[in-house]
Amino acid sequence: MPTLKRKLKMGQVGGGPGAFIGAVHRKAAALDGQIDLVAGCFASTAAKSKETGKELLLDPKRVYGSYTQMIEKEKALPKGERIDFVSIVTPNHVHHPVAQAFMEAGFNVVCDKPMTITVAEAEHLCDTVKRTGSVFALTHNYTGYPMVKEARELVRQGELGELRKVVVEYPQGWLATALETEGAKQAVWRTDPKTSGASGCIGDIGSHCENLVHYVTGLSMAEICADLTIFVPGRKLDDDGNILVRYTNGARGVLYASQISVGDENGLTIRVYGTKAGLEWHQEEPNYLRVKYPDGPEKVYKRGNGYLSPITQHNSRLPFGHPEAFIEAFANIYVNVANTIRAKLEKREPGEFDLDFPTVQDGARGVHFINKAVESAQNGAVWVSAEYTPPS
Amino acid sequence: MPTLKRKLKMGQVGGGPGAFIGAVHRKAAALDGQIDLVAGCFASTAAKSKETGKELLLDPKRVYGSYTQMIEKEKALPKGERIDFVSIVTPNHVHHPVAQAFMEAGFNVVCDKPMTITVAEAEHLCDTVKRTGSVFALTHNYTGYPMVKEARELVRQGELGELRKVVVEYPQGWLATALETEGAKQAVWRTDPKTSGASGCIGDIGSHCENLVHYVTGLSMAEICADLTIFVPGRKLDDDGNILVRYTNGARGVLYASQISVGDENGLTIRVYGTKAGLEWHQEEPNYLRVKYPDGPEKVYKRGNGYLSPITQHNSRLPFGHPEAFIEAFANIYVNVANTIRAKLEKREPGEFDLDFPTVQDGARGVHFINKAVESAQNGAVWVSAEYTPPS
Amino acid sequence: MPTLKRKLKMGQVGGGPGAFIGAVHRKAAALDGQIDLVAGCFASTAAKSKETGKELLLDPKRVYGSYTQMIEKEKALPKGERIDFVSIVTPNHVHHPVAQAFMEAGFNVVCDKPMTITVAEAEHLCDTVKRTGSVFALTHNYTGYPMVKEARELVRQGELGELRKVVVEYPQGWLATALETEGAKQAVWRTDPKTSGASGCIGDIGSHCENLVHYVTGLSMAEICADLTIFVPGRKLDDDGNILVRYTNGARGVLYASQISVGDENGLTIRVYGTKAGLEWHQEEPNYLRVKYPDGPEKVYKRGNGYLSPITQHNSRLPFGHPEAFIEAFANIYVNVANTIRAKLEKREPGEFDLDFPTVQDGARGVHFINKAVESAQNGAVWVSAEYTPPS
Amino acid sequence: MPTLKRKLKMGQVGGGPGAFIGAVHRKAAALDGQIDLVAGCFASTAAKSKETGKELLLDPKRVYGSYTQMIEKEKALPKGERIDFVSIVTPNHVHHPVAQAFMEAGFNVVCDKPMTITVAEAEHLCDTVKRTGSVFALTHNYTGYPMVKEARELVRQGELGELRKVVVEYPQGWLATALETEGAKQAVWRTDPKTSGASGCIGDIGSHCENLVHYVTGLSMAEICADLTIFVPGRKLDDDGNILVRYTNGARGVLYASQISVGDENGLTIRVYGTKAGLEWHQEEPNYLRVKYPDGPEKVYKRGNGYLSPITQHNSRLPFGHPEAFIEAFANIYVNVANTIRAKLEKREPGEFDLDFPTVQDGARGVHFINKAVESAQNGAVWVSAEYTPPS
Repeated sequence: MPTLKRKLKMGQVGGGPGAFIGAVHRKAAALDGQIDLVAGCFASTAAKSKETGKELLLDPKRVYGSYTQMIEKEKALPKGERIDFVSIVTPNHVHHPVAQAFMEAGFNVVCDKPMTITVAEAEHLCDTVKRTGSVFALTHNYTGYPMVKEARELVRQGELGELRKVVVEYPQGWLATALETEGAKQAVWRTDPKTSGASGCIGDIGSHCENLVHYVTGLSMAEICADLTIFVPGRKLDDDGNILVRYTNGARGVLYASQISVGDENGLTIRVYGTKAGLEWHQEEPNYLRVKYPDGPEKVYKRGNGYLSPITQHNSRLPFGHPEAFIEAFANIYVNVANTIRAKLEKREPGEFDLDFPTVQDGARGVHFINKAVESAQNGAVWVSAEYTPPS
Repeated sequence: MPTLKRKLKMGQVGGGPGAFIGAVHRKAAALDGQIDLVAGCFASTAAKSKETGKELLLDPKRVYGSYTQMIEKEKALPKGERIDFVSIVTPNHVHHPVAQAFMEAGFNVVCDKPMTITVAEAEHLCDTVKRTGSVFALTHNYTGYPMVKEARELVRQGELGELRKVVVEYPQGWLATALETEGAKQAVWRTDPKTSGASGCIGDIGSHCENLVHYVTGLSMAEICADLTIFVPGRKLDDDGNILVRYTNGARGVLYASQISVGDENGLTIRVYGTKAGLEWHQEEPNYLRVKYPDGPEKVYKRGNGYLSPITQHNSRLPFGHPEAFIEAFANIYVNVANTIRAKLEKREPGEFDLDFPTVQDGARGVHFINKAVESAQNGAVWVSAEYTPPS
Repeated sequence: MPTLKRKLKMGQVGGGPGAFIGAVHRKAAALDGQIDLVAGCFASTAAKSKETGKELLLDPKRVYGSYTQMIEKEKALPKGERIDFVSIVTPNHVHHPVAQAFMEAGFNVVCDKPMTITVAEAEHLCDTVKRTGSVFALTHNYTGYPMVKEARELVRQGELGELRKVVVEYPQGWLATALETEGAKQAVWRTDPKTSGASGCIGDIGSHCENLVHYVTGLSMAEICADLTIFVPGRKLDDDGNILVRYTNGARGVLYASQISVGDENGLTIRVYGTKAGLEWHQEEPNYLRVKYPDGPEKVYKRGNGYLSPITQHNSRLPFGHPEAFIEAFANIYVNVANTIRAKLEKREPGEFDLDFPTVQDGARGVHFINKAVESAQNGAVWVSAEYTPPS
Repeated sequence: MPTLKRKLKMGQVGGGPGAFIGAVHRKAAALDGQIDLVAGCFASTAAKSKETGKELLLDPKRVYGSYTQMIEKEKALPKGERIDFVSIVTPNHVHHPVAQAFMEAGFNVVCDKPMTITVAEAEHLCDTVKRTGSVFALTHNYTGYPMVKEARELVRQGELGELRKVVVEYPQGWLATALETEGAKQAVWRTDPKTSGASGCIGDIGSHCENLVHYVTGLSMAEICADLTIFVPGRKLDDDGNILVRYTNGARGVLYASQISVGDENGLTIRVYGTKAGLEWHQEEPNYLRVKYPDGPEKVYKRGNGYLSPITQHNSRLPFGHPEAFIEAFANIYVNVANTIRAKLEKREPGEFDLDFPTVQDGARGVHFINKAVESAQNGAVWVSAEYTPPS
């Protein structure tokens, strides 16, 4: 129960004309009536930034032409009026400098994924979070789904036994043609190494797979063997990647992501098998979690029910059968972050479930994974060590 | 594109402690950043109303102890500061007086369903809407789903041919035991004739069926034969109802709703069959619409795709594969109402798709249907005329 | 374990050129290597009958031009050479005389459904079965599915509690146009009152619904209200029927069948709800049975598993995941009948699960139901008593 | 239309007490009334062989104690009385000598998979088939499913465009514990290198994946990287395998099989993506084929419809909605083989669709694949060439 008698104030960097994820962040932040968007630097030009600010019905004085200007002006506002945190939704290469600068100026940060281009940048952010005490969250939004949390709880409670195999897949088809040559803004920056980083497909969605597996299973990768491909002629970054994984506990896995799987939409799926049971979750049917046993009927856990774990119920808004989806999962990150920031502002410990959002360490581990996958692929899809411990 | 340079201001009546649908309305209104909740009378006692207002971070001055006080005080505020519309989320029997009073005072109204207890009250509201020029919307939220709109478009375009049969069902299981005797607030008022009206199950969810069929098919009922049952001992209102329907065009139908279908969650489903094709939509899998042909593969239409009708795309927020669900469907009503209110405030015609929300006439038709079902049942489940034209 | 050291010998009446169900019976009988087709009268003319006999690689001497000739000649063969039973797969109106004559001549009978046109004929067969001691089975094949048997076991074991509601539906679309005017043999006789009886759709597939409900739940109908429709111009029998049902224990139900539900293929589905749980089975996904609880995850029972009831396992041939389907369900009736006939030949009691096939009494109850549905419909879809006890 | 005026006569080697697949072969052969089982050597001891022969109601004179005896005695019978072909359903290591001997003696062969243990044995069989002119079929039964044939037709017709990616998976869970130590006959021989060959999981079910991909897509493997694991302590052969594949046309793939995926039953699934469309088929829902497009609704092709390819319809027995399954797919191989043998006996060319069954060359390619996967795995899961052209 919040004791701070006002909504939190959010600013945003990125999310202007042609953007996709910026609006998702805004809706996710707005959903629960605990956060107000009050400021932003929405685009790389002041004019475009203003245009978006207008559409969003913001006070024009708080719509900025550069993120440095935004930091300067917001910092100058009195406490309680200035933004409580910034939501960073730019292309990947800008995450690091913006997050860095806002944290240095004393702001909390919600940042889109992948966190940075290089591991060095990622570790830099880890250090900065530690040093500044900023609240920092990375929007690996799929872990915000209630039934993903239930999956994690079942694993933690030993329902699956010792884990043996993990299959995670993320097929999409939207980049099966050279969309980036037709001016589609999303396609342009996501296929450009300068703005997207060393990998296209694995960086954009393979990293969600890595994060989802780590969240649900707690397993750490030992070695990977990554076969990355560019199918669309002229493209500079992988648009398909198939990866074999060996986990440190001896479990084996398959992780694949694709942007050329024509007709597939956003098919993130995870299957985990232990000695006692297996589980299965599909992002496109997010309200259900299937648990399969060797000696009894399959069980279909359904969101919104009283038999689910407390943390699952905590991250759910609607009764069973009234489906929740993508935005609610995203909003769960925002709610948890907001609760954590409130706790910080009120100088108290966050609530029991508040810290349940992807951290700067998760971000570093993801960037490390992406770079290792590229290293494996560039050497002919050989096995490379993938062990990594992010700076605490 | 809104030209009014501010968010719309919403008040709410109902939605206090123990309520379910009030929070849904608030989240739906908040989602798109176009509406601010600024005032409310959330409960039948001032203390409880204040408590909810506090949780919602509202200005205590605008949290009221009665709806009449709310009307008086809000009306006294300057234009642009007072609420633009009220969201009524009380038990059914209060809809009519509250909606009536707010409209008389010049406010626009969003009202939960069923609209009223009696047809006379419903027709009174029709008259008041006409006389006052209020924007009035009823939250038959299931018609807010994009794929329901696509279904309607396919019917309108003749893809199904001449309609012959409609099967609509709404099984729930949550009232399979006497939950109302255990103090569950939702169960208490929904099973009490004084607060719920002449019907329990058909009033609460059967009315959604009637509305959904009318929206998708445009068909009007000619006759119905309704077998309503009270299964839970001691309950005063039907918790199950099975209805045969004859439509005026000669089509036949089955409409059933249940609150004792144990294990079913919120299984609203519609199937429409014409001479050329059939379609099928399930509320629990709302992003998909199945269209079946006698001589070719079944087609699965999926939300978020460019091949869908303009109005379907207009009512969608996320790309394909990023599922939307219940709240977005609800929010579509709020967005459309907000756009219509803005148009009214700006003295211009609403946009092409803005008026796509359930009207006071839809509400009257629903109340008429409920009462006719009860009449049929009370006479032994005989056929009764169900023809009705609401006051325009 | 059979002790008779030979396959049983089957004859067939019907199943000639253009037939559908005759071949299904033959494949079902052949599947398990316990029955040999050795004789038949496959069509109404000797020439057509011979043609089919040739295709079936039968000895031409045992391919007959009339069923009376067949009876005479087969009866003249020595025991062990003559047929052990006859499979009757003619249009409906011929079931009664053929079954009657074969039983009088001392043969056992497997007969397709509905059993007869009139209740009098049906009761006549009941008497004849009793008097002659013939083994008589009716191929309401859907009760042959293993997971339908599991459903029955769950009901019997009280897993669902006291039964409250049954929804059974059987939508097909194949008769949505006047196929019978295009010479399609199946359509011709099934839409002709002379060959099909008083009802088209309810007679052909609604009767499966009645049988399935009775088999799974053991409930008996008290009253029905049937709205039957002819949608295709020029057709003489109903091609759609929607029926409200009141069972003698107070349970309520919906039963509908349709042949004009365009695009639906063979969508027989049953849902049963009790005080403690609900179950759901779909003929088009026959290997799964869903059981839903108010307070725990849905359970999906899957054919072929060791956790299923003994009778379910007994009626299954393949390991889990190796799907069985329509023919195996049909074959279960043949296997059970064959085992029962063997027991009779060996003058011993049938095995524990052998008598699990639809009986002449089930057939009489089905014919009664069909005729009552027609009676209700012809009087304007009024409630009529549907109580019936077939002659034992 | 067969002109031979009798059923074909089949013998069987293997399929005695405790066997699984032998009975499947017998049912598949029996289903269509074109094949009679008349002889067999069902087990490694004469006593057990007799026991099975008795259960199968065979003439005891034609139940043999060794396959060499069977060959000798059957060969001595007059033409038309002796078996027309032998069905070999023994453990893997016996396939080669038995098939070899029967072919040398002039018999035709249906053989279970994988065809042999070594590539040399496989190529020996290729030569023998060529030299003897025997009809030889390998029961990679999954290619017998009608909708798999439809998938192949769609690929051939160019509906998918140029192929880019293939994901094929085959998760099972039945060997997640050391079942082989509990005397389960199936588990014992399948986990023993002497009877199963160099691989357990990949040999048993991974080989089905390879065959299915080749059948549907026509693609040939260029290189594979196989990570095979033994999860169950004490087991000698892999019970899980994850393989990256590069096809000669540049397509990439994932192929994995598992016997420790707890709760999964027989989850063979194939997904193929081209430049224009993608397709998806699941063995556990075999009557449906999903085709997904970038710019239109997904299409669900359903077995039994007139819009399917001629070869698909030819391999289907029942109308739409009357599901077919595993045994029918298996039976399609037997029917096609039987038609081909009939053609040979009648000295004419087989019919248009008769040769549609897996050949000795398919078998050799499968054995090569298995051995290459083992080679890759034994070297640490490195890339190895998988190119192979079987002897024609």
